[in-house]
Amino acid sequence: MSDISALWAADSIAVIGASERPGALGRKPMDYLLRYGYKGRILPINPRSPEILGVPAYPSVKDAPGPIDLALIMVAAARVADAVDDCVAAGIPLAIIASSGFAETGEEGARLQDEIVAKARAGGLRIIGPNCIGAVGYENRVLATFSPLFGAENVPFEPGSLAFVSQSGALGFGAASLALERGLRPGWVVSTGNDADVTALEVLRELAKVPEVAGLLGYLEDTPDIGTLRALADSGKPVALLKSGRTEAGGRAAASHTGALATDDRVLDAALRQLGIVRVDDIDELLDVARVFESERRPVGNRVAVVTTSGGSGILAADAIEARGLELSSLQPESKAALGEIVPAFGAIDNPVDITATVLSDPSLFDKSLDVLIADDTVDIIVACFCVMAGPDVEKAVTSLRKAAEKGGKPILVARTGADFLAPDAPRDLREAGLPEYPTPARALRAAAALWEVSRPRPALPHTTPGTGRTPQAATEPELKALLAEAGITVPRGRIVDSEDDAARAVQEVEGRAVFKAVVPGLLHKTEAGGVKLGVTPDTAVDAFRQIAALGGSVLVEELADDGVELIVGVHSSDLGPVLTAGLGGIFTEILDDVSHRLLPLRPGEGAEMLAELRGTALLDGARGGQAVDKAAAAETLHRVADLVQDWPQGYSLDLNPVRVLPQGAVVLDAALTAQTEATR
Amino acid sequence: MSDISALWAADSIAVIGASERPGALGRKPMDYLLRYGYKGRILPINPRSPEILGVPAYPSVKDAPGPIDLALIMVAAARVADAVDDCVAAGIPLAIIASSGFAETGEEGARLQDEIVAKARAGGLRIIGPNCIGAVGYENRVLATFSPLFGAENVPFEPGSLAFVSQSGALGFGAASLALERGLRPGWVVSTGNDADVTALEVLRELAKVPEVAGLLGYLEDTPDIGTLRALADSGKPVALLKSGRTEAGGRAAASHTGALATDDRVLDAALRQLGIVRVDDIDELLDVARVFESERRPVGNRVAVVTTSGGSGILAADAIEARGLELSSLQPESKAALGEIVPAFGAIDNPVDITATVLSDPSLFDKSLDVLIADDTVDIIVACFCVMAGPDVEKAVTSLRKAAEKGGKPILVARTGADFLAPDAPRDLREAGLPEYPTPARALRAAAALWEVSRPRPALPHTTPGTGRTPQAATEPELKALLAEAGITVPRGRIVDSEDDAARAVQEVEGRAVFKAVVPGLLHKTEAGGVKLGVTPDTAVDAFRQIAALGGSVLVEELADDGVELIVGVHSSDLGPVLTAGLGGIFTEILDDVSHRLLPLRPGEGAEMLAELRGTALLDGARGGQAVDKAAAAETLHRVADLVQDWPQGYSLDLNPVRVLPQGAVVLDAALTAQTEATR
Repeated sequence: MSDISALWAADSIAVIGASERPGALGRKPMDYLLRYGYKGRILPINPRSPEILGVPAYPSVKDAPGPIDLALIMVAAARVADAVDDCVAAGIPLAIIASSGFAETGEEGARLQDEIVAKARAGGLRIIGPNCIGAVGYENRVLATFSPLFGAENVPFEPGSLAFVSQSGALGFGAASLALERGLRPGWVVSTGNDADVTALEVLRELAKVPEVAGLLGYLEDTPDIGTLRALADSGKPVALLKSGRTEAGGRAAASHTGALATDDRVLDAALRQLGIVRVDDIDELLDVARVFESERRPVGNRVAVVTTSGGSGILAADAIEARGLELSSLQPESKAALGEIVPAFGAIDNPVDITATVLSDPSLFDKSLDVLIADDTVDIIVACFCVMAGPDVEKAVTSLRKAAEKGGKPILVARTGADFLAPDAPRDLREAGLPEYPTPARALRAAAALWEVSRPRPALPHTTPGTGRTPQAATEPELKALLAEAGITVPRGRIVDSEDDAARAVQEVEGRAVFKAVVPGLLHKTEAGGVKLGVTPDTAVDAFRQIAALGGSVLVEELADDGVELIVGVHSSDLGPVLTAGLGGIFTEILDDVSHRLLPLRPGEGAEMLAELRGTALLDGARGGQAVDKAAAAETLHRVADLVQDWPQGYSLDLNPVRVLPQGAVVLDAALTAQTEATR
Repeated sequence: MSDISALWAADSIAVIGASERPGALGRKPMDYLLRYGYKGRILPINPRSPEILGVPAYPSVKDAPGPIDLALIMVAAARVADAVDDCVAAGIPLAIIASSGFAETGEEGARLQDEIVAKARAGGLRIIGPNCIGAVGYENRVLATFSPLFGAENVPFEPGSLAFVSQSGALGFGAASLALERGLRPGWVVSTGNDADVTALEVLRELAKVPEVAGLLGYLEDTPDIGTLRALADSGKPVALLKSGRTEAGGRAAASHTGALATDDRVLDAALRQLGIVRVDDIDELLDVARVFESERRPVGNRVAVVTTSGGSGILAADAIEARGLELSSLQPESKAALGEIVPAFGAIDNPVDITATVLSDPSLFDKSLDVLIADDTVDIIVACFCVMAGPDVEKAVTSLRKAAEKGGKPILVARTGADFLAPDAPRDLREAGLPEYPTPARALRAAAALWEVSRPRPALPHTTPGTGRTPQAATEPELKALLAEAGITVPRGRIVDSEDDAARAVQEVEGRAVFKAVVPGLLHKTEAGGVKLGVTPDTAVDAFRQIAALGGSVLVEELADDGVELIVGVHSSDLGPVLTAGLGGIFTEILDDVSHRLLPLRPGEGAEMLAELRGTALLDGARGGQAVDKAAAAETLHRVADLVQDWPQGYSLDLNPVRVLPQGAVVLDAALTAQTEATR
């Protein structure tokens, strides 16, 4: 058992601060463990009672019979340090500190929290919390929590395949209660509060190792650790994260709540997309995505067929397919011919396939249409929409859908726009048939898009050993360009010249059209300082040399590049590791902030993806009467830059600005490498 | 009674095609009218039965005792024409044609539909449908529908203040069933199907006149008629519309469903925003917005205060506030001081105000914090978030919130992230207290944004008589510029010259820096044809004259404009009427499609709004080292253009390209007026 898995698999739990007093927080976990039938040993810890609710109690964990897998600490903040000492002394590997009064209250609390964590680490004790609501695991009936959720009557707590970890305890258990109400089955719920030692993400990573877990859900406030995130993604299990603080206002609120540091939210977006982790924006969306994770069918592509009993639902589904980046399958001609035989004249055989309310009088319509779509190789996902159908009609539809799902193995999602009071058994029947159900087409398609996101084949990450090398000390432009050239990145032909005659010769060497540049360490705004002369010819070479040399450094002569489209390419440090950024120059970056990010290393194809997702990407294709330029070379440059920096440590900033993309090839016209401090990240 | 209001207020209803056969569609409205206690006379029409379910039946409406307010026609398509004839003969003012088999099936059906509508119009009969599911009104218990919804047990059909009209019948009644299940109270539900005569929008306009209707909801597939839309907006009642076919895929699906014509969806967005009508993207969103329409409190601004028992909910609320274009109030200093006395140390007194789970032990926390926020003049809307609270705790919170709502008159929305099984009475208690409830902060804030959208003060529309004038026949650039100048729009000084000498004089008149332009009717690409010479001086005037004159038309000499930022301004016809469009030139329009639209006439302030919503608007403020230009003059130009064209009829295209915005003023450098055909819209 890993230490952390005691959160759901502990064979013995000490409740430090257990109480018999009705209404006391320390009574709730006792109540819950007893009521739900915890399968292990309960060890109430209370210095003033020999037993709690009939269970023998002990003054300290040190007095309780071991081994103890998990301690739940529920005493006041001031007494937590002593409790932690006791846990260490008792050899307990994991403690949940539920108590508040730590980093969330300000500096003093943060200091107290740091002390406690240091103490625990030194003693081999891992900590969940503080300031959390505990953990729940169905299998062993672990209810190491004081959440009011489990105090309610008739909580539909059942075996499930979803695991949910939340930094926020109240929101986490609140969302879990909604999940239960909506027929989802979370078998594991953990809140991690201040994430002082073990983070929410680490718990998710451990849960990914549990064979019974089919899907993982998380609510995070802190910027996730990239290593843990990668390990979680590598588990191969579907993951959806709600990371709050997306906006400036949200980021400020998060900072005041847990002291979470803001990173550029778009970098996190890019990282999650690269890793195949779904990012959602609301609890509702998290639960909708969770529902499709419960099913095991995975699509092999993103082409959707919609079969509907209502034209309106079909249109809304088509809208959502486009908005979510999926594709409406155009269907094979033989499918349309077959549907033409089946669907009534007032329906539609183009996708969305509208079988109309006629299905009420002829239930075989559903079967026959589904058969056609299952057999069609241009269909990867099927979404079935029906509205306001009553009990027996829904039963027939579910039977058809179940048969179709079994036959084809293609994921089938259901949008049933009708109240449960019309078909009270429908939610259960659909769940048992493994058919995720949503009240509207848009919500079904959101889930379908998430399913495709976690199923899409991704090239394996190249093997790397990030951060083990040294950042090169190439301080000057020519040194840096030499380094780039070694890495196979095109830079202009050219060299340092040492005299007027040499300058003239150098201009001849580049066919008589040259750029002269000052190489002066520390000179930042070269162009503004008169340190760049464009279009130098043999006639003007001597003059140009004199003017540039007068700036006090050496003189670099390079060939003049042809016209093209300019990119800005950079590598910068971030909380998630080095980030590669590409953007079109000028107003695109400066006014529109039109840039694309990727974490390094880059996988095959990602360079081209980065260029394609720029809003101004049409410029590369020769929009506005311009010439189309060599996008392949531009993408290749991105990959070579990624390869070049792969074993550099964090803490530098590499700026290639501009990279000119030519009709043939791409060339780095200027380059700078600077140390990047925390403040400039 | 207006004809249309018979849909919900009819005192007598003829059911043409009424049947006693179990399972027959024609039986359902009979069942429903009887079961729900219709307050008027039911007149079953069936040529083969003297009575239906105990109600005397008649072979034809012509034989039934009048007056008949409403006929529900449920016979096969082929027999609808005869039924319509009968209704006309019987003097019935309104008929719902539920039957399918018309425009939705193709050309032949469309022809049949046209014939029936023509027949009905000639006979003074208005038509709802065909291909619809009927209409429902609670007050008179009108259930002129065969929707399975009303066949269910325990339908929570109660008095309500929401009216819902849907072009799609199945989706409409499906959504209505969800509304009922979620505790919303739609008192009026109408489906209009093919909208062959009366449109869904007309029905909404009539419903807006019903005093008891507090909020209006619509699902539309066709492009709405702008006149009806304006009348609906002028009712002053809150309206939310779900218009499908937003995307290309959705548009194609809609066209195949009802033959709906696509207009530029962004023009519709702009029009609805101008009119203060909320546009939603999903049924769920429609119902969420409806919930806030049921309450009568309206905000006077968009500044939100969040009070939360969970830090996580607070962050999510802050994210949603920014994402929805609302403002997180920064609170008055005295409010923060007061909150500092109330809120525990581990909470937060900055907005979001986190009172923490301590509220469970000290319920007065909620009261006290709400009092502070109610008294704070920088707070227009309050959103209260709580998670997973059990019954009695929710009751206390609801009591606090009810008192606060009564005291302040400020709208208060609730995000309760917890299952109903934890607090079964909460939905009812909150509803009775007039507090709209949502399961997540994001959904509450979506509704808050909609509430602000319908409450925001809008300047009255200027009085206009659109389309009564004539489009001027100003064919040439100088003629058109003269027209613009008359309208107070700045154009360059200049004039037509008739000789080399005159050209030289004209250059002197504009301080020696001129532009020469060819004025040749029909010459489209002036610049490419060599018809424009920039920077002409007295020295080059004669040469320039000769070159331009050689193109065969007259020669226009204008002053050379100063540098500035260029806009493209146009007025074009659309299905919604003339649309004013403004965009930044170059890549902004050509690559990024960065334009802003408004229907005409323009209200005060809308010109500036248009400029502000351009993605590249920073260019006007002097981004990238440029000079800030005269945005006020640019906005003024937009208003003067709007005034100029206000009584022109549709069917032309006015292009001012470019309008150069200068550090002082704005000047139209080129202008063209062309006839706009259907195909180029």
